[in-house]
Amino acid sequence: MATPTTRQHAWEGVVPKEDLVVYDKAGFGRKGGLGRRPGIVIIDVQYRTVGLEPAPILEAMRTYPTACGQAGWDAVHAIARLLEVARPLGVPVFYPYVAPKEAYDAGRLAGKVPSIMQIDQKGYEFVKEIAPQPSDVLIPKKHPSAFFGTPFASYLIDKGVDTVLLCGCTTSGCVRASAADAFAYNFRTAIIEECVYDRGALSHAVNLFDTNQKYADVVWLDDVLAYLAALKSSE
Amino acid sequence: MATPTTRQHAWEGVVPKEDLVVYDKAGFGRKGGLGRRPGIVIIDVQYRTVGLEPAPILEAMRTYPTACGQAGWDAVHAIARLLEVARPLGVPVFYPYVAPKEAYDAGRLAGKVPSIMQIDQKGYEFVKEIAPQPSDVLIPKKHPSAFFGTPFASYLIDKGVDTVLLCGCTTSGCVRASAADAFAYNFRTAIIEECVYDRGALSHAVNLFDTNQKYADVVWLDDVLAYLAALKSSE
Amino acid sequence: MATPTTRQHAWEGVVPKEDLVVYDKAGFGRKGGLGRRPGIVIIDVQYRTVGLEPAPILEAMRTYPTACGQAGWDAVHAIARLLEVARPLGVPVFYPYVAPKEAYDAGRLAGKVPSIMQIDQKGYEFVKEIAPQPSDVLIPKKHPSAFFGTPFASYLIDKGVDTVLLCGCTTSGCVRASAADAFAYNFRTAIIEECVYDRGALSHAVNLFDTNQKYADVVWLDDVLAYLAALKSSE
Amino acid sequence: MATPTTRQHAWEGVVPKEDLVVYDKAGFGRKGGLGRRPGIVIIDVQYRTVGLEPAPILEAMRTYPTACGQAGWDAVHAIARLLEVARPLGVPVFYPYVAPKEAYDAGRLAGKVPSIMQIDQKGYEFVKEIAPQPSDVLIPKKHPSAFFGTPFASYLIDKGVDTVLLCGCTTSGCVRASAADAFAYNFRTAIIEECVYDRGALSHAVNLFDTNQKYADVVWLDDVLAYLAALKSSE
Repeated sequence: MATPTTRQHAWEGVVPKEDLVVYDKAGFGRKGGLGRRPGIVIIDVQYRTVGLEPAPILEAMRTYPTACGQAGWDAVHAIARLLEVARPLGVPVFYPYVAPKEAYDAGRLAGKVPSIMQIDQKGYEFVKEIAPQPSDVLIPKKHPSAFFGTPFASYLIDKGVDTVLLCGCTTSGCVRASAADAFAYNFRTAIIEECVYDRGALSHAVNLFDTNQKYADVVWLDDVLAYLAALKSSE
Repeated sequence: MATPTTRQHAWEGVVPKEDLVVYDKAGFGRKGGLGRRPGIVIIDVQYRTVGLEPAPILEAMRTYPTACGQAGWDAVHAIARLLEVARPLGVPVFYPYVAPKEAYDAGRLAGKVPSIMQIDQKGYEFVKEIAPQPSDVLIPKKHPSAFFGTPFASYLIDKGVDTVLLCGCTTSGCVRASAADAFAYNFRTAIIEECVYDRGALSHAVNLFDTNQKYADVVWLDDVLAYLAALKSSE
Repeated sequence: MATPTTRQHAWEGVVPKEDLVVYDKAGFGRKGGLGRRPGIVIIDVQYRTVGLEPAPILEAMRTYPTACGQAGWDAVHAIARLLEVARPLGVPVFYPYVAPKEAYDAGRLAGKVPSIMQIDQKGYEFVKEIAPQPSDVLIPKKHPSAFFGTPFASYLIDKGVDTVLLCGCTTSGCVRASAADAFAYNFRTAIIEECVYDRGALSHAVNLFDTNQKYADVVWLDDVLAYLAALKSSE
Repeated sequence: MATPTTRQHAWEGVVPKEDLVVYDKAGFGRKGGLGRRPGIVIIDVQYRTVGLEPAPILEAMRTYPTACGQAGWDAVHAIARLLEVARPLGVPVFYPYVAPKEAYDAGRLAGKVPSIMQIDQKGYEFVKEIAPQPSDVLIPKKHPSAFFGTPFASYLIDKGVDTVLLCGCTTSGCVRASAADAFAYNFRTAIIEECVYDRGALSHAVNLFDTNQKYADVVWLDDVLAYLAALKSSE
């Protein structure tokens, strides 16, 4: 079992001391806290973002250039642990995901990341270990944030969710953008550190730091599991 | 005059080589390019984000804990250069800014950054050197992105803008969130590196890297000035 | 006191029988029902929409061409009754309102309704009888819907509101547009018939009919007062 | 060929004279005008909204309770005429449509219109006569407006559209909501009267009146065909 006292966030030892002093004096980074009605949000955990099987990132990228490799599979297993606890408690689960690209989807994306336009059907499938069940909410999206151009906010309101627990990828892409929007909508927002992943180690660390300072609580999986259990028993 | 060949982006020498290899192989970071109808977007350049006068950040923070100090004033001067060229060309200028907080604005923000709730009126004023003129569009906002909960997209559409040139602060906060949304709306999006600023050096560098890889072109002021001049002469 | 059994909705006797048969067979118009955490939404009740004092509409329009006259004042008095009951219960109150127009606000509106661009400051003031109190939430807006280009949804989420009770004007304009958006966000949505008003009798009637068929419950003030009292006593 | 001088809008003879006087004096209903880069928007023209073949509405409703019958088929033929002219000119065509309902889509809709939750797969198919071609943009939607919870605005911006020409159904539902949002985004907005349809004659007429007064130009198909031809020849 993880020992909280020795565990370090990805940004510790990465963000320089001068920056930490400034953020601390400016009064950022306080805990926002979790609410009473959580929802789990699993973003873009499709084969195109992890690869077809666990492998180092450069190897995984031979199949899908957008794969994150081992970091992705580690997160998949952490998400599986989360779902194992959350599903029996009836916590709603949302799957924002990238729908296969159509010719008319090029937009600005095809300019910045042309490789994204050529991924096979299998690449868009949800990773089996954490795949949606019939009662889960699927949210196809065309843009990074799970909220942009989707009815995600409407689903959260319908389910009475007040707290979003973010999982998936990438930390510096769709997770970050979704955290900023969830915060702007005034949902309580948390990112479960073991459950998110990225292709770049530094971007992963700094985006966790940024979001923890400004938008979300970056939390440990064990603490989330304890929170879910406590919610249940206090009902 | 700056010599492009020797100038370095803030992330160069910061993002590790392994990460650069992955991003490059994955096919990210291509130039998106600029369009024919630019608009200048100056985000949150208010005294609360720079301080009342040029000073090192820790000193500036004594007046406003959210001040960025010298980095902010350097950007103010760069933005002033940009406006000097752009205004005579009739390029529309937009000022998304943080409106003074009301009691009912606490929301999630007061949880994460309580110090933001206590800034005096002067802190909300636009910095004189780059203050709006009567024909400019003011966009009060309550959340990080200039688009979230504002009619900014409607103004851009009304003015026929196809390209947003982002300036202001912070690179890792409102500029980043606005870039992600501008990209999602399919506006061509550029961040002018000398015109944006942050309180943390690492977050500044990594957020420029992230946005340049995925959402926007991070460009130099001189190149933007040349682009604006060329647009004019080709009309 | 109103006698429910004899009271008629504005559309009764107006919508032809053939249309009623079709809507009924199609399965529209079921009661959506109200939730446990209501919020009161008072849209655009400013002097520009009622006139400076009670008067027939054509007379009121001499001061403000957008004034609705007596119908507006009748609604003002009904809203005052609502607030008298709701405020002591701590029900949150929201005031979406039209902010004074700036030169850059012309957009499509100045094309369709040029007279809207020339209203004096007094016209934008809230009508004294129902004016906001310090704890109420003000939502300046540039477009018809209270949600479009505003952070209204974020405020509703922050306050935990699950049900919006719509008042104000015009039934066929901002109330209708706000009802459609509230419904789309999955808030339970009701329009209090005595508390909304319009400049056109037919549009008023038909928009109440449309929204009652598709988006909202059109309800009577007495029933809302009873609902609020019941909520309180069941806590 | 239709003779414009004798043709009447659906609301003529329906909206009472007193209302017309008020709207006119208030300064509503001016022509907004069309722009240079139109896009055609065909909303919800699926078998569920017209029926499997032309038939009176009460008969068509036996297959799909939401069918509009003959009015729908008349519009289908008008839309086909529009496409025949517009496609060779390269005008972009957008198809916002209702995606088949999932269990998790109930939300507020299942409360107001339970019959909508039970339509077969064929009912969701596009009507063959006006079905999308591969280059057209499909926009699945969960709520009335083509803009709400969809990336429609992003597609319009990507294609450089400044004018939306609305077709489809229902006039008082998704067309009305889409017109209000298109107007709020500052797109020039027109509704082609022969190309829209509804299940209720009065709602059809009054919603055309409302939108023509406030948000959109209600125009005739022949005038749109002439406008498209003129655009082409002036390039």
